[in-house]
Amino acid sequence: MGMVGGGKDAFIGAIHRIAANMDGLIELSCGALSINPEIAKESGKELFLPEDRTYLSFEEMIKKESEMPADKRIDFITIVTPNFAHYAPAAMALDHGFNVVIEKPMTFTLQEAKDLKKKLEESGKILCLTHTYSGFPMVKQAREMVKNGDLGKVRKIIVEYNQGWLSRLSEREGNAQASWRTDPKKSGKAGAMGDIGTHAAHLAEYISGLQITKLCADLNILVEGRALDDDGNVLLRFNDNVPGVLMASQVAAGEENNLKIRIYGENGGIEWAEQEPNTLWVKWLDKPTQLYRAGANALGASDFETKNCRTPAGHPEGYLEAFANIYRNFAHTLMAKMEGKEPTKEMLDFPGIEDGVRGMAFIENVVASGNSKEKWTDYKI
Amino acid sequence: MGMVGGGKDAFIGAIHRIAANMDGLIELSCGALSINPEIAKESGKELFLPEDRTYLSFEEMIKKESEMPADKRIDFITIVTPNFAHYAPAAMALDHGFNVVIEKPMTFTLQEAKDLKKKLEESGKILCLTHTYSGFPMVKQAREMVKNGDLGKVRKIIVEYNQGWLSRLSEREGNAQASWRTDPKKSGKAGAMGDIGTHAAHLAEYISGLQITKLCADLNILVEGRALDDDGNVLLRFNDNVPGVLMASQVAAGEENNLKIRIYGENGGIEWAEQEPNTLWVKWLDKPTQLYRAGANALGASDFETKNCRTPAGHPEGYLEAFANIYRNFAHTLMAKMEGKEPTKEMLDFPGIEDGVRGMAFIENVVASGNSKEKWTDYKI
Amino acid sequence: MGMVGGGKDAFIGAIHRIAANMDGLIELSCGALSINPEIAKESGKELFLPEDRTYLSFEEMIKKESEMPADKRIDFITIVTPNFAHYAPAAMALDHGFNVVIEKPMTFTLQEAKDLKKKLEESGKILCLTHTYSGFPMVKQAREMVKNGDLGKVRKIIVEYNQGWLSRLSEREGNAQASWRTDPKKSGKAGAMGDIGTHAAHLAEYISGLQITKLCADLNILVEGRALDDDGNVLLRFNDNVPGVLMASQVAAGEENNLKIRIYGENGGIEWAEQEPNTLWVKWLDKPTQLYRAGANALGASDFETKNCRTPAGHPEGYLEAFANIYRNFAHTLMAKMEGKEPTKEMLDFPGIEDGVRGMAFIENVVASGNSKEKWTDYKI
Amino acid sequence: MGMVGGGKDAFIGAIHRIAANMDGLIELSCGALSINPEIAKESGKELFLPEDRTYLSFEEMIKKESEMPADKRIDFITIVTPNFAHYAPAAMALDHGFNVVIEKPMTFTLQEAKDLKKKLEESGKILCLTHTYSGFPMVKQAREMVKNGDLGKVRKIIVEYNQGWLSRLSEREGNAQASWRTDPKKSGKAGAMGDIGTHAAHLAEYISGLQITKLCADLNILVEGRALDDDGNVLLRFNDNVPGVLMASQVAAGEENNLKIRIYGENGGIEWAEQEPNTLWVKWLDKPTQLYRAGANALGASDFETKNCRTPAGHPEGYLEAFANIYRNFAHTLMAKMEGKEPTKEMLDFPGIEDGVRGMAFIENVVASGNSKEKWTDYKI
Repeated sequence: MGMVGGGKDAFIGAIHRIAANMDGLIELSCGALSINPEIAKESGKELFLPEDRTYLSFEEMIKKESEMPADKRIDFITIVTPNFAHYAPAAMALDHGFNVVIEKPMTFTLQEAKDLKKKLEESGKILCLTHTYSGFPMVKQAREMVKNGDLGKVRKIIVEYNQGWLSRLSEREGNAQASWRTDPKKSGKAGAMGDIGTHAAHLAEYISGLQITKLCADLNILVEGRALDDDGNVLLRFNDNVPGVLMASQVAAGEENNLKIRIYGENGGIEWAEQEPNTLWVKWLDKPTQLYRAGANALGASDFETKNCRTPAGHPEGYLEAFANIYRNFAHTLMAKMEGKEPTKEMLDFPGIEDGVRGMAFIENVVASGNSKEKWTDYKI
Repeated sequence: MGMVGGGKDAFIGAIHRIAANMDGLIELSCGALSINPEIAKESGKELFLPEDRTYLSFEEMIKKESEMPADKRIDFITIVTPNFAHYAPAAMALDHGFNVVIEKPMTFTLQEAKDLKKKLEESGKILCLTHTYSGFPMVKQAREMVKNGDLGKVRKIIVEYNQGWLSRLSEREGNAQASWRTDPKKSGKAGAMGDIGTHAAHLAEYISGLQITKLCADLNILVEGRALDDDGNVLLRFNDNVPGVLMASQVAAGEENNLKIRIYGENGGIEWAEQEPNTLWVKWLDKPTQLYRAGANALGASDFETKNCRTPAGHPEGYLEAFANIYRNFAHTLMAKMEGKEPTKEMLDFPGIEDGVRGMAFIENVVASGNSKEKWTDYKI
Repeated sequence: MGMVGGGKDAFIGAIHRIAANMDGLIELSCGALSINPEIAKESGKELFLPEDRTYLSFEEMIKKESEMPADKRIDFITIVTPNFAHYAPAAMALDHGFNVVIEKPMTFTLQEAKDLKKKLEESGKILCLTHTYSGFPMVKQAREMVKNGDLGKVRKIIVEYNQGWLSRLSEREGNAQASWRTDPKKSGKAGAMGDIGTHAAHLAEYISGLQITKLCADLNILVEGRALDDDGNVLLRFNDNVPGVLMASQVAAGEENNLKIRIYGENGGIEWAEQEPNTLWVKWLDKPTQLYRAGANALGASDFETKNCRTPAGHPEGYLEAFANIYRNFAHTLMAKMEGKEPTKEMLDFPGIEDGVRGMAFIENVVASGNSKEKWTDYKI
Repeated sequence: MGMVGGGKDAFIGAIHRIAANMDGLIELSCGALSINPEIAKESGKELFLPEDRTYLSFEEMIKKESEMPADKRIDFITIVTPNFAHYAPAAMALDHGFNVVIEKPMTFTLQEAKDLKKKLEESGKILCLTHTYSGFPMVKQAREMVKNGDLGKVRKIIVEYNQGWLSRLSEREGNAQASWRTDPKKSGKAGAMGDIGTHAAHLAEYISGLQITKLCADLNILVEGRALDDDGNVLLRFNDNVPGVLMASQVAAGEENNLKIRIYGENGGIEWAEQEPNTLWVKWLDKPTQLYRAGANALGASDFETKNCRTPAGHPEGYLEAFANIYRNFAHTLMAKMEGKEPTKEMLDFPGIEDGVRGMAFIENVVASGNSKEKWTDYKI
């Protein structure tokens, strides 16, 4: 693995490294860790990278790595830069025969996403998009229960993602994370909707197996002085006219990372929250509520659940393990492919190019609806 | 107290009687308990009412009681019939000099609500509307904290009320509660929005001190064969453009009576849920979350909170006590007035005619918005 | 109902009145509310008692009431005085043909308890002991599940009752509740073990259907200057050598009224906590945990559960309703008996003389064990 | 790192590898992964170990590695075999100049523990004992709050560790984990008390800063056919006579890994549970309960807390991260020492030889007390 971005002053790069390390399947071999050469070098050193594979730009890294012998060079690059700097390294990596792991949202614009999709199809390579929350075991369990029809026909979906960390204008006080996320030039058309709304939309579609078909958005800038939405509430319609609500806020003061989803069907509903991720509440119409619990030995669990756990029930796994599940499934797929084997459906269970395109479409559509006076805006790709 | 409706086959009448009994301030003295004379008589007997005060119609009751000597006759009537049968007894009661307690929604139409308001003003009597949920101690505590500015300026309000009991067409299987609530002739223009959406809207306005100024509604009939909405999601704007979301469903299978509200301000947010009513979560931006707890001796509590508790913290009070708080505050107000005293603001803390008019307006406006193609509909009264 | 104790400066009397009022089956008709004549009179007035039935001593009350015509006089007296003043009015009431409701612990000494039992048997009357916590619907549900063998053979019982309100020497600062409870002359041999340990022991025996056969107690005075235990931990053996633990503390700073029980059997365990009383956790060895919920319509519930609820699931009932269940079941038993009918087993489901005797024995045995150097002390009655 | 034990059929070895991998500081370089040569070789292959460092016995590994050049050979060995096979490799490793990481309980007998202590002191090496639960951030936060005197003087400690996985005789049905843990020849003198009771005792001493001075144990075999305790309840005294209770069960059917601790002081109490490890409940006597939350940016947190987190609040870390904290702190200490620097107190925050000796003493003392008829047994080392 070679990393683009993720120097010592960054947040998500460190998370990617932990996730990649965890299962002993992936090794960080090189990096273009910062556009600041000092930081790039220092970061490489801290990460025990050899000097000659501590690159100063992604172009250099991709070029040099592609010239190395096959048994030495990296198998994939992982891109953890801000949104505006996703497409170029991803495209170049594909062009040079590397597989790609990429942070969400996948690109800066929907058009870039479509372009990347075309490039990927031509390359025959694999792209993995780190929509972390789909990596949680109980999210997978929920998806399986919906798919099996345990809840009956899905009737309603409520997904919400509330954070409070942008409750003040911290982007003006040197908070680097806040700074680029609230800057349209680095983040894109949307603020909160791009950063966390896309996670919520992805989670809803991932678990329900349905897709958003139209929406009605109320996007807000609640902290004065911002250029992008920091809060929004969206009425949704999924296939078959199934209604839904998506709420996302980064100014919900006092909230940490409160991502929560509820899906109701004819026979019952499921409820999952990221902050207590090892429990899936299953509320039945005709019998007592059940608590499904994560664990490699979990009671009543699907293969998708148990294969994404490392410990028995009661030994909580969390965000980093969910992240690692995405890397692990991706790595298993890659290894299977390299060995000429067919990856199993459990291996293939990681977000990819389609999720990335839909994520970018979500941003475009939700912003369009936010600007519209009409109630409903069709979801276009 | 004389009761209109609430015979042995009814639900809410029994609740009103418990609530009125609880504090030993109110006595059920007569009733017109059913339009079915058999049921009326049997119910009166079961409730230890004297035969001569077990009436067969509200007209008879109001007339006869008004002719009794002042020290014998009732002080107020309580109306617990289905929505369509609220206005007539309320109006007649006021005309005959009785105070009135009335179930929500207050009337069948907004027009009736306005008429009742006029009549009330002319009568000089007191009307109490049983929006139960505003009777909970921690709801009052939340209101006081918002009013004190503890959260800073309010930025966002999310209120939801999810039930699952109409997940099947139980109105066709002899469920009397389901039957009238889903019947436009008895329930009015709205189904779930009238029955529970009005509670949610009232709670949001009660705690926040703000009023809804426009809305964007998506009302749904999710169980085929129904004439009225059984589910709905509404984007809101309160004064000063504060955004909000209101969700109400009676087909959220597996939910019992899941009323929950969250209000976020500049400094933190509060969260309260009816199913664990004795805890108020207060989430701060800059310090650890606090759990305020109900109790006559509660830590950090306002007078409004402690005066609406009967037990020390840790001895849970619930729905019936919240209901009783409304009756108790109403009774204290009535007693103060009868003794020529000024009721305190704590006594006056029960919903009344304004809440009733706004509730009916909510129903009209939410239905109008549901039928509109425009995103926003102004909230008109 | 006539009340002994419970004047305006008391705590538990007010609770008894609410509990008795709630269901409209019982009327407070007279009282000897305080040994202080002023308080007795004022309290009577506040409670709308006629002056001639506001007595100044229980002796006067019992005597005068027993001389009234049968259709006028009370059916039972309720005793809500401190422990040392339970036996005398109870004995006199039985002697004069009244039924009795009595606060726990039943008497001041085990000997008094045995004497009262003898007197009761001779009188043919009914005695009800207000071990409140056995009145909760989910406690009854738990008991039924154990009885049905749902958990298999019971293997272990953990019961704990933690409060923090005696964390300081508040008995020296004018706290009347603290004052008599920490005074051996008013409270008896035990402090926390008598006041709340007896509740815990009763709950364990009530739900499990087992009885304590030996114990090993570590009783402590954790706040210096006290004469009675304010904390204690007890190892237990129930019938068939089933092990258990009982913990009770009134100096667990920060706790409100944290009574909690867990019972484990071969197939699973149940868990119930008074502070969230409407949920019964049922943890299974071989399937996901279930949450049984209180409600008149509760899913999977026994008759004992539903008959002790007043509202549908999701409308929380609490401490006062549990208390009222004891009064209601007692009242129904009394009414059945007065009508010459056989009370049902659901009516008879309230604590009585046997529970009272066992409670007093618990106090004697736990204190004896606390003073012993031997590990195990046999539980003697 | 070289690993002793932890072949593909083992449980805890895989956990150790994940924990060691996570932060990119430690590399698995060799192993004696199984006494079964087939399994040893296959496991080495699966873990990408070179064939020549896949050893067939710990003796071979320690000998060969000690002969390698300093820059090639491992820095420490990690021992993840059953209890009876801890001492020999640990002692040999120390003798050959390797540092040691070792699973708890540290040895088979107290005597071995004392011997190992002596050897360690002579060697000048570092020993790390993986009492995982002391690695959780909120455990560290709790310890700091106790140390700071936030709770006032500690008055009471309740620690419990309930599992249900031995509720049946699964050791007779091929469950390898169950098999050695219930076998006195492999596990030692105690069953549940050794396997999980030691964790509970360690946690209580770690957080409170107090030590157990005497105890009164009731140890039970609740599943017939076992040779070692599968359940036990212990009354404790800590320094200054502070009372406590320790409960541990592996037959609490329906429990997963329910480790929970409560410590009460004069001003309030703290509560922490492993299954929701990111929240520390702090209950105050005089103000509302607070929820301290884990996170690299946590509100009100100590350095010990934040330095043991990898993610911001709301991104749950769990059991594996707690485990990794122990490895990380150990690795940082080792690196500091190798660089001739003084490790910080945060680096030195991992359990070591003293904890190991106390753990073995706990086992001896609790078994002695279990066999005694006296109430109290002094805690001897």
